[in-house]
Amino acid sequence: MAKKIAIILSGCGVFDGAEVYEATLVQLRLDEAGVEFQCMAPDVDQMHVLNHMTGEEMQETRNVLVESARLCRGNIIDVARADAADYDAVIVPGGFGVAKNLSTFAVAGPEMATNEAVLGFLQTMRGLKKPIGLVCIAPVLAPKVFGAGVTCTLGSDDDDAAKAVIVMGAKHQACAVEEICIDEQNNLITTPAYMLAGRISEASSGISRLVSAVLERA
Amino acid sequence: MAKKIAIILSGCGVFDGAEVYEATLVQLRLDEAGVEFQCMAPDVDQMHVLNHMTGEEMQETRNVLVESARLCRGNIIDVARADAADYDAVIVPGGFGVAKNLSTFAVAGPEMATNEAVLGFLQTMRGLKKPIGLVCIAPVLAPKVFGAGVTCTLGSDDDDAAKAVIVMGAKHQACAVEEICIDEQNNLITTPAYMLAGRISEASSGISRLVSAVLERA
Repeated sequence: MAKKIAIILSGCGVFDGAEVYEATLVQLRLDEAGVEFQCMAPDVDQMHVLNHMTGEEMQETRNVLVESARLCRGNIIDVARADAADYDAVIVPGGFGVAKNLSTFAVAGPEMATNEAVLGFLQTMRGLKKPIGLVCIAPVLAPKVFGAGVTCTLGSDDDDAAKAVIVMGAKHQACAVEEICIDEQNNLITTPAYMLAGRISEASSGISRLVSAVLERA
Repeated sequence: MAKKIAIILSGCGVFDGAEVYEATLVQLRLDEAGVEFQCMAPDVDQMHVLNHMTGEEMQETRNVLVESARLCRGNIIDVARADAADYDAVIVPGGFGVAKNLSTFAVAGPEMATNEAVLGFLQTMRGLKKPIGLVCIAPVLAPKVFGAGVTCTLGSDDDDAAKAVIVMGAKHQACAVEEICIDEQNNLITTPAYMLAGRISEASSGISRLVSAVLERA
Protein backbone atom coordinates (compact mmCIF):
# COMPACT_ATOMS: atom_id res chain seq x y z
CA MET A 1 0.00 0.00 0.00
CA ALA A 2 1.28 3.46 -0.89
CA LYS A 3 1.71 5.84 2.00
CA LYS A 4 -0.90 8.54 2.42
CA ILE A 5 -0.11 11.77 4.21
CA ALA A 6 -2.59 14.29 5.62
CA ILE A 7 -1.91 18.02 5.21
CA ILE A 8 -3.89 20.39 7.43
CA LEU A 9 -4.37 23.85 5.92
CA SER A 10 -5.59 27.04 7.62
CA GLY A 11 -6.77 29.31 4.80
CA CYS A 12 -4.91 30.78 1.83
CA GLY A 13 -2.33 33.50 2.35
CA VAL A 14 0.32 34.04 5.01
CA PHE A 15 -1.34 36.90 6.93
CA ASP A 16 -4.79 35.38 7.54
CA GLY A 17 -4.37 31.77 6.40
CA ALA A 18 -1.81 29.15 5.43
CA GLU A 19 1.55 30.30 4.09
CA VAL A 20 1.29 29.64 0.34
CA TYR A 21 4.95 28.73 -0.31
CA GLU A 22 5.05 26.35 2.65
CA ALA A 23 1.78 24.65 1.71
CA THR A 24 2.94 24.23 -1.89
CA LEU A 25 6.42 23.00 -0.98
CA VAL A 26 5.05 20.34 1.37
CA GLN A 27 2.85 19.06 -1.48
CA LEU A 28 5.74 19.21 -3.96
CA ARG A 29 8.14 17.22 -1.80
CA LEU A 30 5.53 14.58 -0.95
CA ASP A 31 4.63 14.18 -4.61
CA GLU A 32 8.27 14.01 -5.64
CA ALA A 33 8.69 11.21 -3.08
CA GLY A 34 5.86 9.35 -4.78
CA VAL A 35 3.48 9.38 -1.84
CA GLU A 36 -0.17 10.33 -1.91
CA PHE A 37 -1.45 13.26 0.13
CA GLN A 38 -4.83 14.64 1.13
CA CYS A 39 -5.35 18.26 2.11
CA MET A 40 -7.92 19.03 4.79
CA ALA A 41 -9.03 22.08 6.78
CA PRO A 42 -11.66 23.02 9.35
CA ASP A 43 -15.05 24.24 8.07
CA VAL A 44 -15.07 27.48 10.06
CA ASP A 45 -14.89 31.20 9.28
CA GLN A 46 -11.48 32.85 9.22
CA MET A 47 -10.71 35.09 12.22
CA HIS A 48 -10.59 37.93 9.70
CA VAL A 49 -9.58 38.74 6.11
CA LEU A 50 -6.48 40.84 5.49
CA ASN A 51 -5.56 42.73 2.34
CA HIS A 52 -2.11 41.20 1.73
CA MET A 53 -0.84 44.34 -0.02
CA THR A 54 -1.71 46.83 2.70
CA GLY A 55 -2.13 44.65 5.79
CA GLU A 56 -5.53 46.25 6.38
CA GLU A 57 -8.57 44.26 7.47
CA MET A 58 -11.23 43.80 4.78
CA GLN A 59 -14.92 43.86 5.72
CA GLU A 60 -15.78 40.41 4.52
CA THR A 61 -16.04 36.84 5.75
CA ARG A 62 -14.19 33.89 4.28
CA ASN A 63 -14.36 30.20 5.18
CA VAL A 64 -11.12 28.41 6.06
CA LEU A 65 -12.01 25.19 4.22
CA VAL A 66 -13.20 27.00 1.08
CA GLU A 67 -10.15 29.29 0.90
CA SER A 68 -7.74 26.44 1.67
CA ALA A 69 -9.12 24.67 -1.41
CA ARG A 70 -7.28 27.30 -3.49
CA LEU A 71 -3.98 25.82 -2.30
CA CYS A 72 -4.69 22.35 -3.68
CA ARG A 73 -6.75 22.80 -6.84
CA GLY A 74 -9.95 22.04 -4.92
CA ASN A 75 -8.89 18.59 -3.70
CA ILE A 76 -9.70 19.07 -0.03
CA ILE A 77 -11.89 17.60 2.71
CA ASP A 78 -13.27 18.84 6.02
CA VAL A 79 -10.83 17.74 8.73
CA ALA A 80 -13.84 16.91 10.95
CA ARG A 81 -14.81 14.20 8.45
CA ALA A 82 -11.30 12.78 8.08
CA ASP A 83 -10.34 9.56 9.90
CA ALA A 84 -6.80 9.83 11.20
CA ALA A 85 -6.47 6.03 10.97
CA ASP A 86 -6.49 6.41 7.14
CA TYR A 87 -3.20 8.35 7.16
CA ASP A 88 0.43 7.44 7.77
CA ALA A 89 1.51 10.89 8.90
CA VAL A 90 0.29 14.48 9.08
CA ILE A 91 1.98 17.77 8.24
CA VAL A 92 0.76 21.26 9.15
CA PRO A 93 2.25 24.14 7.11
CA GLY A 94 2.54 27.52 8.81
CA GLY A 95 1.09 30.96 8.19
CA PHE A 96 -0.90 33.16 10.59
CA GLY A 97 -3.89 30.92 9.84
CA VAL A 98 -2.47 28.42 12.33
CA ALA A 99 -2.51 31.11 15.00
CA LYS A 100 -5.82 32.67 13.94
CA ASN A 101 -7.97 29.91 12.45
CA LEU A 102 -6.64 26.59 13.80
CA SER A 103 -6.08 28.14 17.22
CA THR A 104 -6.43 31.47 19.00
CA PHE A 105 -2.69 31.82 19.58
CA ALA A 106 -2.52 35.18 17.74
CA VAL A 107 -4.83 36.78 20.30
CA ALA A 108 -4.56 34.56 23.38
CA GLY A 109 -0.90 33.46 23.32
CA PRO A 110 -0.24 30.60 25.77
CA GLU A 111 -3.91 30.70 26.85
CA MET A 112 -4.95 29.74 23.34
CA ALA A 113 -7.83 27.47 22.41
CA THR A 114 -7.43 25.01 19.52
CA ASN A 115 -9.97 24.07 16.85
CA GLU A 116 -11.56 20.84 18.10
CA ALA A 117 -11.49 18.92 14.84
CA VAL A 118 -7.85 19.79 14.19
CA LEU A 119 -6.80 18.97 17.75
CA GLY A 120 -8.77 15.71 17.64
CA PHE A 121 -7.10 14.65 14.38
CA LEU A 122 -3.61 15.45 15.69
CA GLN A 123 -4.22 13.76 19.06
CA THR A 124 -5.47 10.62 17.32
CA MET A 125 -2.33 10.58 15.15
CA ARG A 126 -0.28 10.99 18.30
CA GLY A 127 -2.14 8.10 19.95
CA LEU A 128 -1.37 5.94 16.90
CA LYS A 129 2.29 6.96 17.22
CA LYS A 130 2.31 8.30 13.65
CA PRO A 131 4.78 11.04 12.73
CA ILE A 132 3.61 14.64 12.89
CA GLY A 133 5.39 17.45 11.03
CA LEU A 134 4.76 21.06 12.10
CA VAL A 135 6.16 23.89 9.99
CA CYS A 136 6.88 27.54 10.91
CA ILE A 137 4.38 28.77 13.56
CA ALA A 138 2.50 25.42 13.62
CA PRO A 139 4.62 24.06 16.54
CA VAL A 140 2.54 26.28 18.85
CA LEU A 141 0.05 23.40 18.54
CA ALA A 142 2.57 20.90 19.95
CA PRO A 143 1.94 21.45 23.70
CA LYS A 144 -1.81 20.97 23.12
CA VAL A 145 -1.23 17.77 21.16
CA PHE A 146 1.56 16.19 23.22
CA GLY A 147 1.34 17.88 26.62
CA ALA A 148 4.26 19.12 28.68
CA GLY A 149 7.80 18.10 27.85
CA VAL A 150 7.43 17.98 24.08
CA THR A 151 10.41 19.41 22.19
CA CYS A 152 9.93 21.65 19.17
CA THR A 153 11.40 24.63 17.36
CA LEU A 154 10.07 28.01 16.36
CA GLY A 155 13.46 29.18 15.16
CA SER A 156 15.18 31.52 17.59
CA ASP A 157 14.93 31.20 21.39
CA ASP A 158 14.24 34.95 21.45
CA ASP A 159 11.07 34.67 19.43
CA ASP A 160 7.85 35.43 21.32
CA ALA A 161 6.28 32.24 20.02
CA ALA A 162 9.24 30.25 21.36
CA LYS A 163 8.78 31.86 24.78
CA ALA A 164 5.04 31.11 24.61
CA VAL A 165 5.44 27.37 23.96
CA ILE A 166 7.77 27.19 26.96
CA VAL A 167 5.00 28.78 29.06
CA MET A 168 2.70 26.07 27.66
CA GLY A 169 5.12 23.40 28.88
CA ALA A 170 7.19 22.62 25.80
CA LYS A 171 10.97 22.57 25.52
CA HIS A 172 12.19 24.93 22.83
CA GLN A 173 15.15 24.03 20.65
CA ALA A 174 16.75 26.79 18.57
CA CYS A 175 17.11 25.68 14.95
CA ALA A 176 18.54 27.13 11.74
CA VAL A 177 16.15 27.74 8.85
CA GLU A 178 17.51 24.89 6.73
CA GLU A 179 17.44 22.41 9.63
CA ILE A 180 14.81 20.40 11.49
CA CYS A 181 14.17 19.60 15.13
CA ILE A 182 13.26 16.00 15.95
CA ASP A 183 11.53 14.87 19.14
CA GLU A 184 12.13 11.13 18.73
CA GLN A 185 9.98 10.09 21.66
CA ASN A 186 6.95 11.96 20.36
CA ASN A 187 7.66 11.29 16.67
CA LEU A 188 7.40 15.05 16.11
CA ILE A 189 9.41 16.92 13.46
CA THR A 190 9.45 20.73 13.32
CA THR A 191 11.24 23.31 11.16
CA PRO A 192 11.31 27.13 11.38
CA ALA A 193 10.61 27.93 7.68
CA TYR A 194 9.22 31.51 7.58
CA MET A 195 9.78 32.02 11.30
CA LEU A 196 13.32 32.70 10.04
CA ALA A 197 13.35 32.50 6.25
CA GLY A 198 14.06 35.58 4.20
CA ARG A 199 13.70 33.73 0.90
CA ILE A 200 11.56 30.90 -0.44
CA SER A 201 14.68 28.78 -1.13
CA GLU A 202 15.59 28.92 2.57
CA ALA A 203 12.14 27.74 3.59
CA SER A 204 12.38 25.05 0.93
CA SER A 205 15.54 23.53 2.44
CA GLY A 206 14.05 23.00 5.89
CA ILE A 207 10.70 21.83 4.52
CA SER A 208 12.40 19.27 2.26
CA ARG A 209 14.22 17.86 5.27
CA LEU A 210 11.06 17.83 7.35
CA VAL A 211 9.13 15.95 4.66
CA SER A 212 11.98 13.41 4.32
CA ALA A 213 12.13 12.88 8.10
CA VAL A 214 8.35 12.46 8.31
CA LEU A 215 8.36 9.92 5.46
CA GLU A 216 11.23 7.92 6.98
CA ARG A 217 9.06 7.43 10.06
CA ALA A 218 5.71 6.94 8.28
CA MET B 1 24.01 43.93 -11.52
CA ALA B 2 21.85 41.01 -10.44
CA LYS B 3 19.17 39.98 -12.87
CA LYS B 4 15.62 40.98 -12.01
CA ILE B 5 12.67 39.05 -13.36
CA ALA B 6 9.04 40.19 -13.52
CA ILE B 7 6.26 37.72 -12.68
CA ILE B 8 2.73 38.65 -13.78
CA LEU B 9 0.00 37.12 -11.61
CA SER B 10 -3.74 36.93 -12.30
CA GLY B 11 -5.37 36.33 -8.91
CA CYS B 12 -4.96 33.50 -6.39
CA GLY B 13 -6.35 30.06 -7.17
CA VAL B 14 -6.46 28.00 -10.33
CA PHE B 15 -10.17 28.36 -11.16
CA ASP B 16 -10.51 32.15 -11.00
CA GLY B 17 -6.90 33.34 -10.66
CA ALA B 18 -3.29 32.26 -10.97
CA GLU B 19 -2.45 28.58 -10.49
CA VAL B 20 -0.90 28.48 -7.02
CA TYR B 21 1.62 25.68 -7.61
CA GLU B 22 2.85 27.27 -10.85
CA ALA B 23 3.18 30.73 -9.31
CA THR B 24 5.08 29.31 -6.33
CA LEU B 25 7.37 27.10 -8.42
CA VAL B 26 8.35 29.97 -10.69
CA GLN B 27 9.34 31.98 -7.61
CA LEU B 28 11.17 28.99 -6.07
CA ARG B 29 13.27 28.29 -9.17
CA LEU B 30 14.16 31.96 -9.66
CA ASP B 31 15.20 32.28 -6.02
CA GLU B 32 17.20 29.06 -6.16
CA ALA B 33 19.01 30.51 -9.18
CA GLY B 34 19.90 33.55 -7.08
CA VAL B 35 18.00 36.09 -9.16
CA GLU B 36 15.65 38.73 -7.86
CA PHE B 37 12.01 38.77 -8.89
CA GLN B 38 9.09 41.16 -8.59
CA CYS B 39 5.49 40.02 -8.72
CA MET B 40 2.94 42.31 -10.35
CA ALA B 41 -0.72 42.12 -11.38
CA PRO B 42 -3.40 44.37 -12.86
CA ASP B 43 -5.49 46.45 -10.44
CA VAL B 44 -8.87 45.24 -11.75
CA ASP B 45 -11.75 43.15 -10.41
CA GLN B 46 -11.69 39.43 -11.07
CA MET B 47 -14.16 38.19 -13.72
CA HIS B 48 -15.80 36.26 -10.89
CA VAL B 49 -15.01 34.40 -7.68
CA LEU B 50 -15.30 30.61 -7.62
CA ASN B 51 -15.60 28.34 -4.60
CA HIS B 52 -12.65 26.03 -5.30
CA MET B 53 -14.28 23.09 -3.47
CA THR B 54 -17.58 23.12 -5.34
CA GLY B 55 -16.80 25.07 -8.50
CA GLU B 56 -19.79 27.32 -7.78
CA GLU B 57 -19.71 31.07 -8.27
CA MET B 58 -19.66 33.11 -5.05
CA GLN B 59 -21.55 36.40 -4.85
CA GLU B 60 -18.61 38.60 -4.07
CA THR B 61 -16.03 40.78 -5.78
CA ARG B 62 -12.28 40.39 -5.44
CA ASN B 63 -9.47 42.46 -6.89
CA VAL B 64 -6.80 40.72 -8.98
CA LEU B 65 -3.89 42.72 -7.54
CA VAL B 66 -5.04 42.30 -3.94
CA GLU B 67 -5.65 38.56 -4.26
CA SER B 68 -2.41 38.00 -6.18
CA ALA B 69 -0.59 39.51 -3.19
CA ARG B 70 -1.44 36.28 -1.31
CA LEU B 71 0.89 34.39 -3.64
CA CYS B 72 3.96 36.45 -2.78
CA ARG B 73 3.61 37.45 0.89
CA GLY B 74 2.34 40.88 -0.10
CA ASN B 75 5.38 41.87 -2.16
CA ILE B 76 3.56 42.96 -5.30
CA ILE B 77 3.08 46.03 -7.49
CA ASP B 78 0.48 47.22 -9.99
CA VAL B 79 1.65 46.13 -13.44
CA ALA B 80 0.43 49.49 -14.80
CA ARG B 81 3.08 51.21 -12.64
CA ALA B 82 5.90 48.83 -13.56
CA ASP B 83 8.53 49.89 -16.11
CA ALA B 84 9.43 46.94 -18.33
CA ALA B 85 12.88 48.45 -18.87
CA ASP B 86 13.68 47.65 -15.21
CA TYR B 87 13.42 43.89 -15.84
CA ASP B 88 15.56 41.33 -17.63
CA ALA B 89 12.74 38.92 -18.40
CA VAL B 90 9.09 38.25 -17.58
CA ILE B 91 7.25 35.04 -16.70
CA VAL B 92 3.47 34.55 -16.60
CA PRO B 93 2.24 31.53 -14.60
CA GLY B 94 -1.04 29.91 -15.70
CA GLY B 95 -4.42 29.38 -14.10
CA PHE B 96 -7.83 30.45 -15.39
CA GLY B 97 -6.97 33.95 -14.20
CA VAL B 98 -4.95 34.40 -17.39
CA ALA B 99 -8.07 33.59 -19.43
CA LYS B 100 -10.49 35.49 -17.17
CA ASN B 101 -8.61 38.41 -15.63
CA LEU B 102 -5.60 39.11 -17.88
CA SER B 103 -7.69 38.48 -20.99
CA THR B 104 -11.21 37.48 -21.97
CA PHE B 105 -10.09 34.20 -23.55
CA ALA B 106 -12.36 32.10 -21.27
CA VAL B 107 -15.46 33.74 -22.73
CA ALA B 108 -14.34 35.14 -26.10
CA GLY B 109 -11.83 32.53 -27.30
CA PRO B 110 -9.80 33.79 -30.30
CA GLU B 111 -11.77 37.08 -30.23
CA MET B 112 -10.38 37.82 -26.81
CA ALA B 113 -9.38 41.22 -25.47
CA THR B 114 -6.27 41.57 -23.30
CA ASN B 115 -5.77 43.73 -20.22
CA GLU B 116 -4.06 46.90 -21.49
CA ALA B 117 -1.42 47.19 -18.78
CA VAL B 118 -0.43 43.52 -19.08
CA LEU B 119 -0.31 43.66 -22.87
CA GLY B 120 1.67 46.89 -22.77
CA PHE B 121 4.24 45.42 -20.39
CA LEU B 122 4.66 42.28 -22.49
CA GLN B 123 4.87 44.20 -25.77
CA THR B 124 7.53 46.49 -24.33
CA MET B 125 9.54 43.45 -23.21
CA ARG B 126 9.15 42.05 -26.70
CA GLY B 127 10.35 45.32 -28.21
CA LEU B 128 13.40 45.19 -25.94
CA LYS B 129 14.00 41.61 -27.14
CA LYS B 130 13.91 40.33 -23.57
CA PRO B 131 12.90 36.73 -22.92
CA ILE B 132 9.27 35.99 -22.11
CA GLY B 133 8.17 32.77 -20.39
CA LEU B 134 4.50 31.74 -20.57
CA VAL B 135 3.28 28.80 -18.49
CA CYS B 136 0.19 26.59 -18.94
CA ILE B 137 -2.70 28.59 -20.49
CA ALA B 138 -0.65 31.83 -20.58
CA PRO B 139 0.56 31.19 -24.18
CA VAL B 140 -2.91 32.30 -25.36
CA LEU B 141 -1.41 35.77 -24.84
CA ALA B 142 1.39 35.07 -27.35
CA PRO B 143 -0.43 36.00 -30.59
CA LYS B 144 -1.45 39.34 -29.05
CA VAL B 145 2.11 40.07 -27.93
CA PHE B 146 4.04 38.81 -30.96
CA GLY B 147 1.49 38.76 -33.77
CA ALA B 148 1.09 36.02 -36.36
CA GLY B 149 3.72 33.35 -36.79
CA VAL B 150 4.76 33.06 -33.15
CA THR B 151 5.36 29.48 -32.00
CA CYS B 152 4.12 28.27 -28.62
CA THR B 153 2.73 25.24 -26.83
CA LEU B 154 -0.45 24.57 -24.92
CA GLY B 155 0.36 20.88 -24.57
CA SER B 156 -1.63 18.71 -26.96
CA ASP B 157 -2.56 19.74 -30.50
CA ASP B 158 -6.09 18.52 -29.70
CA ASP B 159 -6.61 21.01 -26.91
CA ASP B 160 -9.19 23.72 -27.63
CA ALA B 161 -6.75 26.41 -26.51
CA ALA B 162 -4.17 25.08 -28.98
CA LYS B 163 -6.74 25.30 -31.78
CA ALA B 164 -7.65 28.81 -30.66
CA VAL B 165 -4.09 30.17 -30.81
CA ILE B 166 -3.82 28.79 -34.35
CA VAL B 167 -6.97 30.77 -35.24
CA MET B 168 -5.21 33.79 -33.72
CA GLY B 169 -2.26 33.25 -36.04
CA ALA B 170 0.19 31.30 -33.90
CA LYS B 171 1.92 28.05 -34.75
CA HIS B 172 1.21 25.38 -32.15
CA GLN B 173 3.88 22.90 -31.13
CA ALA B 174 2.80 19.84 -29.15
CA CYS B 175 4.97 19.43 -26.05
CA ALA B 176 5.28 16.93 -23.20
CA VAL B 177 4.57 18.17 -19.68
CA GLU B 178 8.20 18.04 -18.57
CA GLU B 179 9.44 19.81 -21.72
CA ILE B 180 9.52 23.35 -23.04
CA CYS B 181 8.86 24.93 -26.43
CA ILE B 182 11.31 27.60 -27.57
CA ASP B 183 10.60 30.19 -30.25
CA GLU B 184 14.19 31.42 -30.71
CA GLN B 185 13.29 34.28 -33.03
CA ASN B 186 10.81 35.74 -30.57
CA ASN B 187 12.75 34.81 -27.42
CA LEU B 188 9.59 33.11 -26.16
CA ILE B 189 9.62 30.02 -23.95
CA THR B 190 6.42 28.11 -23.15
CA THR B 191 5.60 24.94 -21.19
CA PRO B 192 2.30 23.06 -20.74
CA ALA B 193 2.38 22.62 -16.91
CA TYR B 194 -1.23 22.06 -15.80
CA MET B 195 -2.53 21.97 -19.37
CA LEU B 196 -1.22 18.39 -19.10
CA ALA B 197 0.07 17.79 -15.58
CA GLY B 198 -1.66 15.34 -13.31
CA ARG B 199 0.72 15.96 -10.43
CA ILE B 200 2.62 18.93 -9.05
CA SER B 201 5.97 17.19 -9.67
CA GLU B 202 5.16 16.97 -13.40
CA ALA B 203 4.40 20.68 -13.55
CA SER B 204 7.59 21.33 -11.59
CA SER B 205 9.79 19.62 -14.21
CA GLY B 206 8.60 21.77 -17.10
CA ILE B 207 8.57 24.96 -15.05
CA SER B 208 12.15 24.35 -13.86
CA ARG B 209 13.25 24.01 -17.48
CA LEU B 210 11.32 27.11 -18.51
CA VAL B 211 12.91 29.19 -15.75
CA SER B 212 16.38 27.93 -16.71
CA ALA B 213 15.79 28.71 -20.38
CA VAL B 214 14.48 32.19 -19.56
CA LEU B 215 17.49 32.93 -17.34
CA GLU B 216 19.97 31.70 -19.96
CA ARG B 217 18.57 34.32 -22.30
CA ALA B 218 18.10 37.12 -19.74
